[in-house]
Amino acid sequence: MTSTIKKIGVLTSGGDAPGMNAAIRAVVRACAYYNVECIGIYRGYQGMIEGDFKEMGPRTVKNIINKGGTILKSARSKDFMTTEGRLQAYNHLKESGVDALVVIGGDGTFTGAEIFNNEFQFPIIGIPGTIDNDIYGTSHTLGYDTALNTVVEAIDKIRDTANSHNRLFFVEVMGRDAGHIALNAGIGGGAEEILIPEENLGLDRLVESLRKSKDSGKTSSIVVVAEGDKIGKNVFELKDYVEENMPDYDVRVSVLGHMQRGGAPSCFDRVLASRLGVKAVEVLLEGKTNYMVGLLADKVVLTPLEQAIKGQSRVDAELVKVSDIISI
Amino acid sequence: MTSTIKKIGVLTSGGDAPGMNAAIRAVVRACAYYNVECIGIYRGYQGMIEGDFKEMGPRTVKNIINKGGTILKSARSKDFMTTEGRLQAYNHLKESGVDALVVIGGDGTFTGAEIFNNEFQFPIIGIPGTIDNDIYGTSHTLGYDTALNTVVEAIDKIRDTANSHNRLFFVEVMGRDAGHIALNAGIGGGAEEILIPEENLGLDRLVESLRKSKDSGKTSSIVVVAEGDKIGKNVFELKDYVEENMPDYDVRVSVLGHMQRGGAPSCFDRVLASRLGVKAVEVLLEGKTNYMVGLLADKVVLTPLEQAIKGQSRVDAELVKVSDIISI
Amino acid sequence: MTSTIKKIGVLTSGGDAPGMNAAIRAVVRACAYYNVECIGIYRGYQGMIEGDFKEMGPRTVKNIINKGGTILKSARSKDFMTTEGRLQAYNHLKESGVDALVVIGGDGTFTGAEIFNNEFQFPIIGIPGTIDNDIYGTSHTLGYDTALNTVVEAIDKIRDTANSHNRLFFVEVMGRDAGHIALNAGIGGGAEEILIPEENLGLDRLVESLRKSKDSGKTSSIVVVAEGDKIGKNVFELKDYVEENMPDYDVRVSVLGHMQRGGAPSCFDRVLASRLGVKAVEVLLEGKTNYMVGLLADKVVLTPLEQAIKGQSRVDAELVKVSDIISI
Amino acid sequence: MTSTIKKIGVLTSGGDAPGMNAAIRAVVRACAYYNVECIGIYRGYQGMIEGDFKEMGPRTVKNIINKGGTILKSARSKDFMTTEGRLQAYNHLKESGVDALVVIGGDGTFTGAEIFNNEFQFPIIGIPGTIDNDIYGTSHTLGYDTALNTVVEAIDKIRDTANSHNRLFFVEVMGRDAGHIALNAGIGGGAEEILIPEENLGLDRLVESLRKSKDSGKTSSIVVVAEGDKIGKNVFELKDYVEENMPDYDVRVSVLGHMQRGGAPSCFDRVLASRLGVKAVEVLLEGKTNYMVGLLADKVVLTPLEQAIKGQSRVDAELVKVSDIISI
Repeated sequence: MTSTIKKIGVLTSGGDAPGMNAAIRAVVRACAYYNVECIGIYRGYQGMIEGDFKEMGPRTVKNIINKGGTILKSARSKDFMTTEGRLQAYNHLKESGVDALVVIGGDGTFTGAEIFNNEFQFPIIGIPGTIDNDIYGTSHTLGYDTALNTVVEAIDKIRDTANSHNRLFFVEVMGRDAGHIALNAGIGGGAEEILIPEENLGLDRLVESLRKSKDSGKTSSIVVVAEGDKIGKNVFELKDYVEENMPDYDVRVSVLGHMQRGGAPSCFDRVLASRLGVKAVEVLLEGKTNYMVGLLADKVVLTPLEQAIKGQSRVDAELVKVSDIISI
Repeated sequence: MTSTIKKIGVLTSGGDAPGMNAAIRAVVRACAYYNVECIGIYRGYQGMIEGDFKEMGPRTVKNIINKGGTILKSARSKDFMTTEGRLQAYNHLKESGVDALVVIGGDGTFTGAEIFNNEFQFPIIGIPGTIDNDIYGTSHTLGYDTALNTVVEAIDKIRDTANSHNRLFFVEVMGRDAGHIALNAGIGGGAEEILIPEENLGLDRLVESLRKSKDSGKTSSIVVVAEGDKIGKNVFELKDYVEENMPDYDVRVSVLGHMQRGGAPSCFDRVLASRLGVKAVEVLLEGKTNYMVGLLADKVVLTPLEQAIKGQSRVDAELVKVSDIISI
Repeated sequence: MTSTIKKIGVLTSGGDAPGMNAAIRAVVRACAYYNVECIGIYRGYQGMIEGDFKEMGPRTVKNIINKGGTILKSARSKDFMTTEGRLQAYNHLKESGVDALVVIGGDGTFTGAEIFNNEFQFPIIGIPGTIDNDIYGTSHTLGYDTALNTVVEAIDKIRDTANSHNRLFFVEVMGRDAGHIALNAGIGGGAEEILIPEENLGLDRLVESLRKSKDSGKTSSIVVVAEGDKIGKNVFELKDYVEENMPDYDVRVSVLGHMQRGGAPSCFDRVLASRLGVKAVEVLLEGKTNYMVGLLADKVVLTPLEQAIKGQSRVDAELVKVSDIISI
Repeated sequence: MTSTIKKIGVLTSGGDAPGMNAAIRAVVRACAYYNVECIGIYRGYQGMIEGDFKEMGPRTVKNIINKGGTILKSARSKDFMTTEGRLQAYNHLKESGVDALVVIGGDGTFTGAEIFNNEFQFPIIGIPGTIDNDIYGTSHTLGYDTALNTVVEAIDKIRDTANSHNRLFFVEVMGRDAGHIALNAGIGGGAEEILIPEENLGLDRLVESLRKSKDSGKTSSIVVVAEGDKIGKNVFELKDYVEENMPDYDVRVSVLGHMQRGGAPSCFDRVLASRLGVKAVEVLLEGKTNYMVGLLADKVVLTPLEQAIKGQSRVDAELVKVSDIISI
């Protein structure tokens, strides 16, 4: 390819997600493959403002495809919300000869990219990296598949105890705005009920459902609750409510927390990261900008960043139905 | 739904695959949900011939969603290749009141289903269960995603040793006819070269590629080889050839073998199995037959069994390209 | 061996722990090996009172060596604290011909066993099963080694995020009375500080230590906190205190919770369970009673139940020193 | 401590093992703690001869406690078997001011250390690092516990398939001279038979045992075979023999191979490595030399290197008995 772009910068921003390192590796190696220089930018937009840059070559990124987190580190940057901050960032890029960016992150990261591009006409491609899978324009975000496996493995362990003691467990998983993790890991973990932000089951129906579940011969139960569940009570209040209304139940709570964000990425996330990283570089070299590279119908596709930010990634109604059927 | 079908039989056949139990569970529970009886048939078609049946209800299948293998066991049946055998099977089904079948397996399983349906007009729906992902009409077969994770975890371990000793490893993975596992796990495992049945790289280019890899500063390498690789040498012969032609390399072989077929299914495989199992029952109750339920573009879809058998599941050319680029 | 004992009952009681199933399997198979009958008692002492018994043979316990939890289930029994309850239990045992018991559990389980033996001269051997490792007379209790691995795997994941964001994490692990899990998993997880019930570090020294840690160039930190830590604040209060006193630190909390109790047992726990289960049966057949079988200096040894209950399992002072040195 | 030692070198040699990095970390940090400088020596004795050294401080070894392999790499060195080679190594050490060594490895590593110390009176302490656990003077070598878990996890997966297809599997594990891995992982994996170098079961008794096993109702079997098994046939010949003599059995082979050497170390191996690494430095500073630090009865102890080399680490007869009993 011939292109005016000679040096590409890559950064990770927002919450870290497994697969970010695999994506960095793919970007760096695709640059080498297409004879373009590559600069790693530390701590997201904040490092861009501070000029925290490092040259990267194919060997710089060896043995990171299987590592969680991000070797470029991530941070949220208040300074990047100011015109001054962004100007400083732009100047650092220009000084270093960087003439295009690949940004790996979520909604916030893409919003920053949009603004930066508008101000400086700087070519930018986004890669969706967040375990929450709440980005429009891609069936899977980096880290989502890994997080699902982390959650079902934790539920498998909790079920050992639930079964041994005939208990009911509320397991809280990540997902403030989207129920993807709760719904899929709930099905995969064999949950009796799944509470997600997209649906308000209501307390009465929850208790009714648990009672029905017990009456049908189930001696233990797992209820998976997304952080952002709309039932209006946190997971400890849910426990109290159920214990009051079902005194025959021994109820426990487990909040899985931050370990959902880490760990060696699954094969799926490594392959996805490799595909998106390569494509991001190729697309920049073709002269495109302001797109997110994503996966739809198993193919790598482009979505305008603006749409990716505004659009909503909805849970599949079929899955909600499947969840109801198989928890009978 | 109103349907003439009152009792559905479910069996697993061919090589076992993680997710088969999750699919059995989904079939059994969907039957209960739709008020249809369910019979488990042991050891595939052979058990059908021998009348090795067991009634199954929602509680029969508890705590199996996370188990590898198949609680219904699997077997290859020579008797089912005879008209007599199939007649005997048919009679057992009729005696037990079974009036439809869900068969979980691969090509061979579906071929048997086609023949049986032709002879007895017996309603049958197939679910693709094999780690090889070599079935047309579905982007993923049950067990494939789990096998990929098993393989990359093994490669991660082998790479620890490869790195520590500056060695070259040939890692043989499953896939006699299809390179899906090798290609994806090779990318996910960070392999320097991937040898698949679909492509004949040739010995010279392999050695050349490895030499280039070493010259570029790589001190250790992993080559992933599919069982059915077309280079015309088995993995031990490859090792000998490379050692002769690259005497500076310390070469080792690892054949991953049967552990690729086992293990707790990934979340993806559990959810896929749940969706396909439910759909298989729903489709039978709608009066359909001779279809495979599969996943295309993240949606559950139907493919005529005949097409599923005859069609080819090809590796994605984009992936081959990505693999070349990121192994630079 | 010739012995008057013809039928042995086995039960699990108290919190479940990985390896309990492996121990049940060993007891059942040792009974078969020595031509003694074996009865499984469900739900601990409560099931003994209710006569919830099941005959067990070598095939009953197949494929359970690798399962977490306990197939015999566990429960706490208030009725067993009454003379009536215990008499009822005794009568059920006599009716079923059970003339000796193997009880798997912790302190509470052994105390019940002592009382029961005193009242009815019923031969009982105890096997230490609890993840907390807080039993005198054995270097390892069943489930402890597995729990350590579960905790370090979770810390490894959390560290991915801690590193990526330069954060401080408080990770709360189990251990109300004993710091074994916190101390060992803290060392294994590379924690900067470890707070255990046996030692009161004090808030000031904690903050001082963290500051020193940061000054030495550490950009992220993990502090492992045992549930029963004596610093007088829970883990969320610790977070608040540190944030107030170290405003430059981004502090997070993760409570690992119940998943520490589950999961497939480690090889160590499976082997330990097999050795203790076999020995428990052999010792009963030799006419001994009121002992716990445990592991000391890698050998299976006997400790009188009374001592096992009264004695204290202390953390090793050398480990506390090692932890200080390697967190430099 | 006051000591004449001002700079300690650390190296890994022989086959790599999980926990070596944790030991390197502990050595480096203990040096910092005691105000001694530390030098990492790459590629074992070969790197010592070539002066391939690197200064190491506490931050150099961050985030390696959980990594398999060895960051210092390992190699076998023919040059170190010559007087010239060793003199060259000595000169490099002197030039760099290194006045004591910690060597991590197995028998061969310790033999080299002995010779080197004899020639140059150079203070050396050994740390036993090998998955085979075949070192006298320590109940556990670094990496052994991790390898056991790797093997039982693989056997668990293979058993899924063995169960589903009613098959017999021969699983070959590492251990040319010692049956520790085979015996312990065999018990942990629920193997029906275990073939180890220390015991010649004989072909006839193997077949007899398998037949008895089948007659007792077992539908599938796992036989674990150590590489160095003394039955006089390799694992593929064993398969052929059994198939000839038991035509009703479907027999398969799985050679686990090199992945047994890699992977994130278990908590046990991390803690052991930390304890031994710290002790090695402390012992050198106390003026001791030619000892191996090891673990006996859960305490860190010293064994003269000479004894560690000559002595034999035997499998425990009790374990062989337990294995017989629980495979009934």
